[in-house]
Amino acid sequence: MRPYEIIKKKRDGQALSAQEITSFLGGYTRGEIPDYQMAALTMAVFFKGLSAPELAAWTGAMLRSGEVLDLSDIPGVKVDKHSTGGVGDKVSLALAPMAAACGVKVPMISGRGLGHTGGTLDKLESIPGFRVDLGIPVYRELIAGVGACLIGQTATLAPTDKKLYALRDVTATVDCIPLIASSIMSKKLAEGIDALVLDVKVGSGAFMKTREDARTLARTMVGIGREMGKKVVALLTDMEQPLGRAIGNALEVQEAVAILKGKAPADLTECTMALTAEMLVLAKVAPGRAEARARLERCVADGSALKKLAEIARAQGGDPRFVEDESVLPKARNVRPILSLTEGYVAGIETEAMGLAAVALGAGREKVDSLIDPAVGFILERKVGERVQ
Amino acid sequence: MRPYEIIKKKRDGQALSAQEITSFLGGYTRGEIPDYQMAALTMAVFFKGLSAPELAAWTGAMLRSGEVLDLSDIPGVKVDKHSTGGVGDKVSLALAPMAAACGVKVPMISGRGLGHTGGTLDKLESIPGFRVDLGIPVYRELIAGVGACLIGQTATLAPTDKKLYALRDVTATVDCIPLIASSIMSKKLAEGIDALVLDVKVGSGAFMKTREDARTLARTMVGIGREMGKKVVALLTDMEQPLGRAIGNALEVQEAVAILKGKAPADLTECTMALTAEMLVLAKVAPGRAEARARLERCVADGSALKKLAEIARAQGGDPRFVEDESVLPKARNVRPILSLTEGYVAGIETEAMGLAAVALGAGREKVDSLIDPAVGFILERKVGERVQ
Repeated sequence: MRPYEIIKKKRDGQALSAQEITSFLGGYTRGEIPDYQMAALTMAVFFKGLSAPELAAWTGAMLRSGEVLDLSDIPGVKVDKHSTGGVGDKVSLALAPMAAACGVKVPMISGRGLGHTGGTLDKLESIPGFRVDLGIPVYRELIAGVGACLIGQTATLAPTDKKLYALRDVTATVDCIPLIASSIMSKKLAEGIDALVLDVKVGSGAFMKTREDARTLARTMVGIGREMGKKVVALLTDMEQPLGRAIGNALEVQEAVAILKGKAPADLTECTMALTAEMLVLAKVAPGRAEARARLERCVADGSALKKLAEIARAQGGDPRFVEDESVLPKARNVRPILSLTEGYVAGIETEAMGLAAVALGAGREKVDSLIDPAVGFILERKVGERVQ
Repeated sequence: MRPYEIIKKKRDGQALSAQEITSFLGGYTRGEIPDYQMAALTMAVFFKGLSAPELAAWTGAMLRSGEVLDLSDIPGVKVDKHSTGGVGDKVSLALAPMAAACGVKVPMISGRGLGHTGGTLDKLESIPGFRVDLGIPVYRELIAGVGACLIGQTATLAPTDKKLYALRDVTATVDCIPLIASSIMSKKLAEGIDALVLDVKVGSGAFMKTREDARTLARTMVGIGREMGKKVVALLTDMEQPLGRAIGNALEVQEAVAILKGKAPADLTECTMALTAEMLVLAKVAPGRAEARARLERCVADGSALKKLAEIARAQGGDPRFVEDESVLPKARNVRPILSLTEGYVAGIETEAMGLAAVALGAGREKVDSLIDPAVGFILERKVGERVQ
């Protein structure tokens, strides 16, 4: 079937066969199908959607456009966690060492900040010496040895996703749930995982503003996982306000350390524990959620999770002393209190605006090549429901 | 507004401003907006449509992408007719001389065969010597002097339509009524007309298969005309079977001559008279349809319409003797009767298949550079409702 007929078929609301999707995406990957035909197809997908079998074929074609890691020679169940992005989301920094301390293997290929949201890689790089560009051989070695490795996307994993994302970004098909879901899942499935926990953020600071959209995205991604034979669990978590109290790279590393010391804000601790518990259950390290939570609390109480974070940092070139000594991390030259002009209770936080304000301070990139200042950020002394004087 | 935001706005069903449309199409014409953004926008238009003001802006931008002829220095009302295409549609060849014989100025820029349909230019070129590539100065001169001129599309008129049509053709947005309407109207409005009669074909041999689609297309084009300050009338005419009995270029020229001699099949004569009468009314050559019809019958009866056809042919380099002597026209070497295998009445004709069969004989192009054999074609000895033995 010609590309024209595939576009027309989707435009007219008919389901595409796996073979049609594979041939279209394969042709696009090889440069035989031009951007304008892909732009027309993705706009038709925006209006007509993709069914579960179509999504599996679409994701599979993107996955197979590059290297698909095989970590089956590393003993243990390999489980990753992916967040759809929010403000103050430093969960991965505590979750990876906790899961690894409990015996889960954590292959984690993370991203940079996007728009108003922060990125795990940017946060990690505020630890002096920490490297996220280690390459796949070292990645394998650290997963096997340390139990976790957190690196950046490589050019060899799902390259078509990168090409397609750039096209969607200029043709107004970014906010399309099937395309978001297949983009995330193709990258995650290329990492070599056995199972995946998804943290779908919902609220004013998330990309999904409504529960309905978040639930649809979550179900779509879980469905793709099922079609691809992977165990996938999704939690919808609140992003009506920033997670925890810290926003900004080094500040968030400090707050992640606080989780592992049992001293973090309750919302952040709960979110991290709930997601990590799912990983333990998927990895069969714990028989159920209750046992998983108990196990996680032990690894915090006995210091093994904190020790694991230091071990991961050291293995990736970072100075491990930051887990005990905050002064190792970059510090802002100027620290100013911002006081409320009125008295009362905080009724809401403009979370996306907070994220953008942090970007403006230098915590994120305003342009692709902007430099990040790891020290800057905000500490929210008051959150929703708290009294301001 | 950036191209991205214009695509998103249309995708989300909001109306675009004239300025947004002008800037997008202008950018596309200048090559600043790439094909992939236009492909995304046209697919969004496929789903969300264009309102009357949007269509006027869209058509205006395509019109102004090239030369817009100004024939206002030529005395008389300039009226053209455009058909959306069918099988056996030789109306223009009789209509132009009839209208000109009655004092209408007919600036007619015609097309080639497309798909299963024939094209006026291909038909005219079966007259030995007839040239359709005369250029605009000669075109003006013949409209002023002879009263009609039939030429082909020049590269300078609405070039964006050509570029956009080629893109739509490979991105499955050809069969989109607002885009069809603006494509036709931008070319016609560039010709220098004061008024326009549209022949919207409907039925199995037309591009519009249903009355509903044909009516929508007709109303859309009339609406564009009104927004652009031109008088436009549309007739819906039957294309459930070929028009007249002749299909094929030289055969259709002969049948067009028969119209002007009062000897053509009734359906063809009626269609031609009805359309030409509208032109006379629009040109104010006749006060109403009845008077226009009477006038047309006189110009057939007194031979002035036939004389005008010969005059047009001579002015465009053709051998004018064909109006009296069929042997001047190319003749097929082999003529074979095709007999029905059963007896009864013709219940229907697969009109599109007849058109494609004529193309396969050589009456049209299977590829862009195929050569046309002007002599080949079909004579339908029996049409719908007639007895076959």
